[in-house]
Amino acid sequence: MNPQYPFLNPFLTTRSLHPENQETPIQFIENDIVNNLFYRRNHFSYPIFSYSHYWLPLSGSLIKPQLISMQEMLRLPSKTIKVVLECSGNKRSLFEPRVFGEQWEKGAISQGYWTGVPLKTILNISGVKEEEIKEVVVEGYDYGKRSDLDKVYTYARSLPIEKALHPDTMIAYAYNHKPIPFQHGFPLRLIVPQWYAMASVKWIKQIKVIDHTFKGPFQTIDYVYYPNKDDNNHSFPVTTINVNSTIQKPLDMEVIQTGKHVIKGIAWTGKGYIKNVEISTDQEKTWSRARIENPNHSGYDWTTWSYEWTVLEKGEYKIMAKATDSYDRTQPTLPFWNRKGYGYNAIDEINVKVE
Amino acid sequence: MNPQYPFLNPFLTTRSLHPENQETPIQFIENDIVNNLFYRRNHFSYPIFSYSHYWLPLSGSLIKPQLISMQEMLRLPSKTIKVVLECSGNKRSLFEPRVFGEQWEKGAISQGYWTGVPLKTILNISGVKEEEIKEVVVEGYDYGKRSDLDKVYTYARSLPIEKALHPDTMIAYAYNHKPIPFQHGFPLRLIVPQWYAMASVKWIKQIKVIDHTFKGPFQTIDYVYYPNKDDNNHSFPVTTINVNSTIQKPLDMEVIQTGKHVIKGIAWTGKGYIKNVEISTDQEKTWSRARIENPNHSGYDWTTWSYEWTVLEKGEYKIMAKATDSYDRTQPTLPFWNRKGYGYNAIDEINVKVE
Repeated sequence: MNPQYPFLNPFLTTRSLHPENQETPIQFIENDIVNNLFYRRNHFSYPIFSYSHYWLPLSGSLIKPQLISMQEMLRLPSKTIKVVLECSGNKRSLFEPRVFGEQWEKGAISQGYWTGVPLKTILNISGVKEEEIKEVVVEGYDYGKRSDLDKVYTYARSLPIEKALHPDTMIAYAYNHKPIPFQHGFPLRLIVPQWYAMASVKWIKQIKVIDHTFKGPFQTIDYVYYPNKDDNNHSFPVTTINVNSTIQKPLDMEVIQTGKHVIKGIAWTGKGYIKNVEISTDQEKTWSRARIENPNHSGYDWTTWSYEWTVLEKGEYKIMAKATDSYDRTQPTLPFWNRKGYGYNAIDEINVKVE
Repeated sequence: MNPQYPFLNPFLTTRSLHPENQETPIQFIENDIVNNLFYRRNHFSYPIFSYSHYWLPLSGSLIKPQLISMQEMLRLPSKTIKVVLECSGNKRSLFEPRVFGEQWEKGAISQGYWTGVPLKTILNISGVKEEEIKEVVVEGYDYGKRSDLDKVYTYARSLPIEKALHPDTMIAYAYNHKPIPFQHGFPLRLIVPQWYAMASVKWIKQIKVIDHTFKGPFQTIDYVYYPNKDDNNHSFPVTTINVNSTIQKPLDMEVIQTGKHVIKGIAWTGKGYIKNVEISTDQEKTWSRARIENPNHSGYDWTTWSYEWTVLEKGEYKIMAKATDSYDRTQPTLPFWNRKGYGYNAIDEINVKVE
């Protein structure tokens, strides 16, 4: 460390600029909260809209459809929760055979404090007719042409009514106690804890309550697991985050010396909380428990863990990390390959050479 | 493009922070000159030294050993040349089998205008005894412990006398017409065109003229091609840049549509100049010449090239680029594997899916 040179800082890693897709340098995130280095994932160019006339329209199967102003939103009872947002394409570049699309390595993931109003509160104010509705559609201001379809589409996603009414599914107006940065959805962003982040729609333009199944392309074409290369059989939607972990230190292919080393990283899940993380440095002959540094009993944020490794023999080592959650979901040896490359969560591994 | 959002910019890609190693996002470099996005490659932490007493000592087999002040340096006749600096570990991550060390992808390369005084001028002023000397050692202010040796070393490298006296080997004090940024060697940096950038020593502390062969570890351990995994037989030093090319567009694993596409990229060499660049989109059945956009007849900078590709059939394609220089050196199908992973220059390739 050289504190005299504050320009020693990591940057986002660029995957594409049109649209802007940039990755968090996750190996170098030491804080529990990601600020400026929050990954950016866009489908289209950044939207242009007027904030001076910003209202949130709620329509559909409601007793009182309405426009909610930002002032009203800020007066409603709020909550603040620490949430992991993970792109469902995180780690896509690791699939074998390789999968087309953004080649995310391990950094399409970030976390921080989101503050906002539960979607349930808003729906209750509008008099949601629970028995009559099926889904809640949230549409963003971002739009554009898709390469596979002729029309222009806005980015829109639906939630089943149970998830929409979950007390922690919220319309957020602040990130880390400040207005949400424009790139991350200012002024209002949906936050859906435990689901991959395609559900957390940015720049909310309107919310519609519907009595049928929403069929937008970001629901029926993208964000679907297609297990087969050449047909769409057995496909099913991407929803809950898989149990997962990432080794932050040492770095992959790093050369280190014999002696004591701290192996450290993060682990997270979309169901329950992380129960344990195990480390193997001997090709899975043995697994040892890592120390959980900050247990994520809320279940929405990541756990940090560390493991003290004493290595006396020179040579090449594979270091593996395997997380298990409180539902006994555990990282598999092989990932579930799917044509669009979602939900990669195989046991994390890196290689080091000990000199 | 969305010119209303100037925050759409690429960043350096972090490989490590201690020492700081960050990569140029080469796919997104559209200018002929790299400014803020110049890659950073360090062996140690940034050095601390006083600029208020900065003198450059020249010693060794000289008639008039001396200290040269910055004022004197700036008064000497200068030249400005456009030079590619490429880390010899550029593209190391592509070697199969994988090689330990910094996992550079394709961005450990940058170029721009360097201004300074030929080393030859300085050596002549000091009365170099050409017949008596063999090498010129340039030492930087950066130092530290190496993981493989017990002592502390400064970063130092020698040049054979012929290369040291080449009229374009210079002591630079400006980059792109401004003082050299601190991270890149302020106030004085050696610039050795056509050699990999380990030769272009930063933060010059002193220059020594010697009558023997220099044996520093950055010359005898690192920056040596070791063709064998388990022994040092047949090793030889890393010097001249290999002929090479990088496809910038499309991106690897990008999904594109049928129709016309511009494939574009850069090509460079350490010997002569780039004579042609050929593209294959049909598994090497045919090769077509790309258009050279800015021929690099000086030979020190990179050439930009483009190729118009019309693709009507949907499917998966491998796009390959192969550069040939004026010495008829051409990119090989397989890279020359070496244990420390230097000089990768196999035919560049990316994959795309056409929908």
